[in-house]
Amino acid sequence: MKLGQLETPCLVLDEARLERNVARMRAHLDALGVGLRPHVKTAKSIDVTRRTLRSKEDTITVSTLKEAEYFLGHGVCDILYAVGATPNKFGHITDLRRRGAQLALILDNVDAARALAAHARASGDAIPVLVEIDCDGHRSGIVPGDPALLAVGRTLTEGGCELRGVMTHAGASYNCGSVAAIKAMALQERDAVVTSAKALRAAGLRCPVVSVGSTPTATYAENLAGVTEVRAGVFVFFDLVMAGIGVCALDDIAVSVLGSVIGHQRDKGWIIVDSGWMAMSRDRGTARQKLDQGYGVVCDVFGKPYPDLIMADANQEHGVLALRPGSHERLPELPVGSMVRILPNHACATAAQHQAYQVVRGEADAISATWPRIAGW
Amino acid sequence: MKLGQLETPCLVLDEARLERNVARMRAHLDALGVGLRPHVKTAKSIDVTRRTLRSKEDTITVSTLKEAEYFLGHGVCDILYAVGATPNKFGHITDLRRRGAQLALILDNVDAARALAAHARASGDAIPVLVEIDCDGHRSGIVPGDPALLAVGRTLTEGGCELRGVMTHAGASYNCGSVAAIKAMALQERDAVVTSAKALRAAGLRCPVVSVGSTPTATYAENLAGVTEVRAGVFVFFDLVMAGIGVCALDDIAVSVLGSVIGHQRDKGWIIVDSGWMAMSRDRGTARQKLDQGYGVVCDVFGKPYPDLIMADANQEHGVLALRPGSHERLPELPVGSMVRILPNHACATAAQHQAYQVVRGEADAISATWPRIAGW
Repeated sequence: MKLGQLETPCLVLDEARLERNVARMRAHLDALGVGLRPHVKTAKSIDVTRRTLRSKEDTITVSTLKEAEYFLGHGVCDILYAVGATPNKFGHITDLRRRGAQLALILDNVDAARALAAHARASGDAIPVLVEIDCDGHRSGIVPGDPALLAVGRTLTEGGCELRGVMTHAGASYNCGSVAAIKAMALQERDAVVTSAKALRAAGLRCPVVSVGSTPTATYAENLAGVTEVRAGVFVFFDLVMAGIGVCALDDIAVSVLGSVIGHQRDKGWIIVDSGWMAMSRDRGTARQKLDQGYGVVCDVFGKPYPDLIMADANQEHGVLALRPGSHERLPELPVGSMVRILPNHACATAAQHQAYQVVRGEADAISATWPRIAGW
Repeated sequence: MKLGQLETPCLVLDEARLERNVARMRAHLDALGVGLRPHVKTAKSIDVTRRTLRSKEDTITVSTLKEAEYFLGHGVCDILYAVGATPNKFGHITDLRRRGAQLALILDNVDAARALAAHARASGDAIPVLVEIDCDGHRSGIVPGDPALLAVGRTLTEGGCELRGVMTHAGASYNCGSVAAIKAMALQERDAVVTSAKALRAAGLRCPVVSVGSTPTATYAENLAGVTEVRAGVFVFFDLVMAGIGVCALDDIAVSVLGSVIGHQRDKGWIIVDSGWMAMSRDRGTARQKLDQGYGVVCDVFGKPYPDLIMADANQEHGVLALRPGSHERLPELPVGSMVRILPNHACATAAQHQAYQVVRGEADAISATWPRIAGW
């Protein structure tokens, strides 16, 4: 089976690029002496995760309990649920733990800690907890030095929960303007959790796990002393946002959307394809970057980019391909029925629009496998 | 079962608002003497479509062949596939037709028409065709007056296909700044297809069907003389983009995302919920409007908006709720575990992130049903 025989749109995964991306990240973290707890929210696929984990490893990060259910069903047991847990999810988490998941959760406030302590008493299940630290002001977490950290730690410990450590996510690294800025952010991320771990330990509280992670900081971290694990997700696929901040090259991007030309508006320089935002997602992450890639960079069916050709606009099931503004390139001749592959702004968002990966290897169009992925909550 | 017992995020549908939205659109089109061919791409749910169609009606518009498969399986047979069909989908379309679908397609160029004629000869299936007309320059179609229309019509007719008529979609109506502009666009949409139909008929070609449609133009059309059917989709649910252009009120919006508070960043005025862009979609359609609603308008669990509270930012599974810039309102007191409902920018995009609707009726929190929806291609 070849890509040309598929009905479009669909999602293509280059397994050779996936393997290269994983190998590069593992080599970097090996050199720093830190383990990887991959974030499976990007791929939501056991086949991708098996290629990310080494044999006998079963440590992952999830963003939903649906992911935890799915990976537990595939024998991956050591799971961190890395979105602040609400009391109405504690019962589900305990259920997963009773079915064999070594599932830990995160939280960042005394109210949630109290509710968890009450759950531990009522259920007899002391769900392990990492306290979320805010390293960059971008979202959740306790700022290093805030006495709330010790209050949460004591509430958990005295309430019979297992305080396992601290974690943070430098989401602001996605907006860094240079590699130097990412390196500085990686240090800031490390310092935030290492400082917080010291504060807990100085107060006589446990803190065996010190967890950081974002693909940009994981890629460029130079010093992870005091950190016990790195979480990262999008590095398995990469995308145009990551390329835009210098974390990968265009030819590292392992996922693309396969589309077919359905018509032209020749006086406007438009090629219309059957892949719109439903296939690409509405993510316009490169709009804030130096080079706005529209809804994606257009490649031929083997994955080679056409010079300056992007998806300039998108409707639900229509994409409008055009040369980027100011380009002196010629629009390629792509008759009705021609197929193209479009590199996404944000791999997590684009992959989420699809139910399976059509797997190819390298610059080829032969499909070696179809890997399902999960969705929902 | 009540909303408070659900695990979040999930998608809530207010059936009373759905029924009201459908009744209003049907009454308007009845007064104009034109039938409705609802676009099912918004809801992708037989339960919603059953409440949109009158008894014995089975005429719908689809945006994917997966929708055609699904609705055919539920006995809805008269289907227009309203995305320009590529030759690699003709076989699938013929297969659906042999299984009972009265499925028609659209195209806008001679190359596709030739390929379809070749398919008709090879398969013996003369798939009916509407020629797509470009009424507003926003996407696909043949501009009225372009001789390409007659060339396509002749290619189809001489090639043994069934030329059934013309269709257009005034997608530019989504960017109209006033009701007057929408009314003008509705007239422009009508004129484009009526003129094109006349041109086909004057050349001795058939054109029984004259089809228009977009929710804004369908809502405000005052004259549809010469039009045989209206297609519209998002009117069943409405959304903030439609409210922003005056096509509905906030309390017409029938879908919302249910989320739970997981924490606060009190010094920033942020409330963090477990519903991010994966639950809302990345659609930021109100960013171009007078009132930017962020990722959505935040309501209590019964669907009543909190003054000036929006989802100001979103990560994959995190939403950041905050007062809109410049607001003098007070941030509501929403402890960890509190539930909110968030009205979406774009109902088609948000609903697509979910696998089911939790159905309530009016300003209530009792769940009367769970309706599945389909995804993918």
